[in-house]
Amino acid sequence: MEPKQSPFSKAQLAAIAAEHPTPFYLYDERAIRANARALRAAFGWNAGFREYFAVKATPNPFILAILRAEGLGADCSSLPELRLAERAGLRGDWLMFTSNDTPAEEFRAARALGAVINLDDLGHLGFLERCAGLPELLSFRYNPGAARTGNAIIGQPAEAKFGLTREQLFEGYALARERGVRRFGLHAMVASNELDPQYFVDTAAMLFELVAELHARLGIRCEFVNIGGGIGIAYRPEQRPVELALVSRGIQAAYAATIAARGLAPLALLMECGRLITGPYGYLVARVRHIKRGYKRFAGLDASMADLMRPGMYGAYHHVSVPGKEHLPADERYDVTGSLCENNDKFAIDRPLPPLEPGDLLVIHDAGAHGHAMGFNYNGKLRPAELLLREDETVVRIRRAETLDDYFATLPLGQLAAFEV
Amino acid sequence: MEPKQSPFSKAQLAAIAAEHPTPFYLYDERAIRANARALRAAFGWNAGFREYFAVKATPNPFILAILRAEGLGADCSSLPELRLAERAGLRGDWLMFTSNDTPAEEFRAARALGAVINLDDLGHLGFLERCAGLPELLSFRYNPGAARTGNAIIGQPAEAKFGLTREQLFEGYALARERGVRRFGLHAMVASNELDPQYFVDTAAMLFELVAELHARLGIRCEFVNIGGGIGIAYRPEQRPVELALVSRGIQAAYAATIAARGLAPLALLMECGRLITGPYGYLVARVRHIKRGYKRFAGLDASMADLMRPGMYGAYHHVSVPGKEHLPADERYDVTGSLCENNDKFAIDRPLPPLEPGDLLVIHDAGAHGHAMGFNYNGKLRPAELLLREDETVVRIRRAETLDDYFATLPLGQLAAFEV
Repeated sequence: MEPKQSPFSKAQLAAIAAEHPTPFYLYDERAIRANARALRAAFGWNAGFREYFAVKATPNPFILAILRAEGLGADCSSLPELRLAERAGLRGDWLMFTSNDTPAEEFRAARALGAVINLDDLGHLGFLERCAGLPELLSFRYNPGAARTGNAIIGQPAEAKFGLTREQLFEGYALARERGVRRFGLHAMVASNELDPQYFVDTAAMLFELVAELHARLGIRCEFVNIGGGIGIAYRPEQRPVELALVSRGIQAAYAATIAARGLAPLALLMECGRLITGPYGYLVARVRHIKRGYKRFAGLDASMADLMRPGMYGAYHHVSVPGKEHLPADERYDVTGSLCENNDKFAIDRPLPPLEPGDLLVIHDAGAHGHAMGFNYNGKLRPAELLLREDETVVRIRRAETLDDYFATLPLGQLAAFEV
Repeated sequence: MEPKQSPFSKAQLAAIAAEHPTPFYLYDERAIRANARALRAAFGWNAGFREYFAVKATPNPFILAILRAEGLGADCSSLPELRLAERAGLRGDWLMFTSNDTPAEEFRAARALGAVINLDDLGHLGFLERCAGLPELLSFRYNPGAARTGNAIIGQPAEAKFGLTREQLFEGYALARERGVRRFGLHAMVASNELDPQYFVDTAAMLFELVAELHARLGIRCEFVNIGGGIGIAYRPEQRPVELALVSRGIQAAYAATIAARGLAPLALLMECGRLITGPYGYLVARVRHIKRGYKRFAGLDASMADLMRPGMYGAYHHVSVPGKEHLPADERYDVTGSLCENNDKFAIDRPLPPLEPGDLLVIHDAGAHGHAMGFNYNGKLRPAELLLREDETVVRIRRAETLDDYFATLPLGQLAAFEV
């Protein structure tokens, strides 16, 4: 097994850090594009295949614009996400709106942009009709309930707040047609960060069966199934990425058996992956600020849990590499920490690493999704910049770091002097 | 046991919500002041007693100004927190700076403000001296390691990134005196959200013993011990608040036995509570947006996990009350959810509540600490306003809600048009 290493050399990172103070996120455009192409190629057998990038994973319009250029749409679940995608030039059926507990103004915005609407609740049908009118094309989100076992992360579907029950689904399509909807899609999302290819084959097969049943029982013909996202990535060095070819072959076989065999082709296969697309190709770059020797050995970074929540929140593993020290033995153990006043503020616990010194640049891997997006300002921490390494090796800052002024922006500081206590 | 109920009537909340769109945080100034006074009164036997409110719990300068008026200082652990406290009029020994993995500019700012500096690491002594000079008064944070069992939340002290080992502590004081420090304090913080009064008595007793040992071994006389924060609150209806009188009596007895008996009085007792001070007196007020009947019954609010992270992040209990429906039987069960595209976005699971309808105002209790402070923008969610109910029953907005412009503020949107993809 080859070790997981930073794609950036020490000199390259040092040059970037000389221009942009650490910590920062660094996205590798070339790798993201190659990855997007590989996904499309893997599903080339399906003429209507489209990946809608889950905006929540990396809500940056520059990333969305790059993905659009690679033929990827955007999956949005809130008004700000729709606005981000709009800024990146996405409209119409390049937008999927997969929301839940949705306010009227968000449905109105989605309709105005021509987004494909994916209804989470039977009750939302009348609500959408009243507040924004029903579109010609409509999708429903299916929750298989006890019929399906959720994966480890997303839990049991029957406990999830998302989607329609099986009975509601049939009621929903019939009702939607009655109210004038003419074109239909079907969606489910029952996994998150799952590495077992079979899981996605099973989801597609489940949806294909439903498509056939909708046709048999209601005469409704679906144009697409959206199997959601949830394809995991290899955070740990010993993990292997999901083999997309396996997923694709399995889905293709189910398609042939259920869709093509019953004359229900063509049916477009859609996905809403986020993590899979950008996760491995975004890095949090930080600098060692202090080495502390207490009961354990700590490397304190200038980044914290406020920059990358997953280790502190989920105990998630993120690989750490030290450019320039790749060839040294990883024979010291460190808790790699931030400066938050919070016990969980650790990027890694007892991690074997080469000997570290203040000033060392560290690369925290697989931070390209659900990284910056989940940052917060706890303890007054300011969220970091996002940089894009372009294919020509230039670096573009696609988000600046927050400043104290940003942190204070929502406070009416001018009223403090007159505030009587 | 009396049921936990909203202190706000339906009419009062409706009037506030007519002026301020939900969701919002609502802080009860009268209750916060009474609570601050009760804490000071409980420790009246100690002439130097001071509570330094942990800014991270509720980083709003209007709250800090109210607490200052009640004689409370501020415990800061980052530069933005120092700046907030400064805006609230706090300086000098009204400020405690309890940081870790600290950058030079933060030490410089703390020194410039005259804050009491509480060093987390032996290595920080030389660092502080080099970057900002050593102050006349200095405190060290003690980590008891295996000598102490951490409480359930904070875990084992020996695993924590905070503080100096016992050996380092003695070395630190000796070194600090050598370098010119003349006045000393001692700090420990080994619990979080702990309801057992004895825990705090034990911490104080542990520190008193150390004070005595420091005096015996090094001839160093401490001016204060800071027993940290960590006093919990009664989130669940069946829980009882910590009896401060019990904590105080226990600490007083230890003080008499260890400090006064050895001629080491006066010694000021300091605390850094956050949650205890504002936690029970801040409420997240939200409105039911949709009722959904899937495999379970869901009440979807206009607030989400982005507004209050604790239930989704820790599975924490927050009581929910429905003003105007207090007298109805709580005979339906709801998952109370937000609209985040995230499985954990639930304020409550299977919670017995009166029958809910869209439009109902809900009060989520005990959100006055680590509530707004931990909010994030995941899924493009905008953080809510903070309102203060003053003692004269007027409502002052002490933080506005975020807007799309805030959400976009760090993005160079002007460069999108020229961004070649």
